[in-house]
Amino acid sequence: MEKNGEAAAEWRVAVAVDGSEESMHALGWSLRNVLSASAKNTVVLLYARPPPPIYPSTDTSGYLFSDEEITTMEQYNKEVENSVIDKAQTILKNHDNIKVEKRIATGDARDVICDTVDRVGADLLVMGSHGYGFVKRALLGSVSDYCIHHAKCPVLIVKRP
Amino acid sequence: MEKNGEAAAEWRVAVAVDGSEESMHALGWSLRNVLSASAKNTVVLLYARPPPPIYPSTDTSGYLFSDEEITTMEQYNKEVENSVIDKAQTILKNHDNIKVEKRIATGDARDVICDTVDRVGADLLVMGSHGYGFVKRALLGSVSDYCIHHAKCPVLIVKRP
Repeated sequence: MEKNGEAAAEWRVAVAVDGSEESMHALGWSLRNVLSASAKNTVVLLYARPPPPIYPSTDTSGYLFSDEEITTMEQYNKEVENSVIDKAQTILKNHDNIKVEKRIATGDARDVICDTVDRVGADLLVMGSHGYGFVKRALLGSVSDYCIHHAKCPVLIVKRP
Repeated sequence: MEKNGEAAAEWRVAVAVDGSEESMHALGWSLRNVLSASAKNTVVLLYARPPPPIYPSTDTSGYLFSDEEITTMEQYNKEVENSVIDKAQTILKNHDNIKVEKRIATGDARDVICDTVDRVGADLLVMGSHGYGFVKRALLGSVSDYCIHHAKCPVLIVKRP
């Protein structure tokens, strides 16, 4: 990848993973086709942890979730996160010459991905074209569409065949 | 790029050009960062020629453009096409080890790009994130947004810094 108009010897390729088959295919594809070119390349796994639910208010009219419900939701989110990272690790096992970094941040996937790509100095962002759930996509628009317009580096969208 | 899940030795990279600075930057970027890796790679330049204007009807109530006006528009489109190809050739001059193919087809840029990518067996489509005019974009949506969802190969969007 290039820095300041010059092709660089080392690529830092950020891959956004969310547990969807699409994102895991994108990770595998970029490892085989982009990252495997040089042992100096680094893959930066990005995972956006969903933001915490709204906490109970002392004012009962503002009650939303009990402590117990929040603990259950947090446990569920933690399990999802572990499952995503496990899936990614399985794919990475076949490419043990490639350097791996992980970045997990809490918040809306669109903001987390664009901010982190910038912070880690990625030369390229790779994403699946879908993921992050049908309902959320319908409400907020596709995460990949957002990142294409807002990430500061080139964005590669890989679809499942 | 890969065929049937195996990383291929040769990449056929289609780059959509439209004369915008964005698309020329995307061409230069992909030559330096993707195509220069191997002399076996091929860049396929895609240019969508605007569809012909609506022709005059024998019924005067259906009159839209005179023959003269149509000739002027066709000449203008031809000049634009030549200017785009010239710009692209200038950028390609610095990479004379890379094989070049050109595909020019008439029609809406979105259809032309997606169809041609499929027909030439491109492993990757590279586009600038904008181009094709502000008004057209506002009316039809971004060409790149469309191609991301409809092209059959991975799509790389390169923005100007």
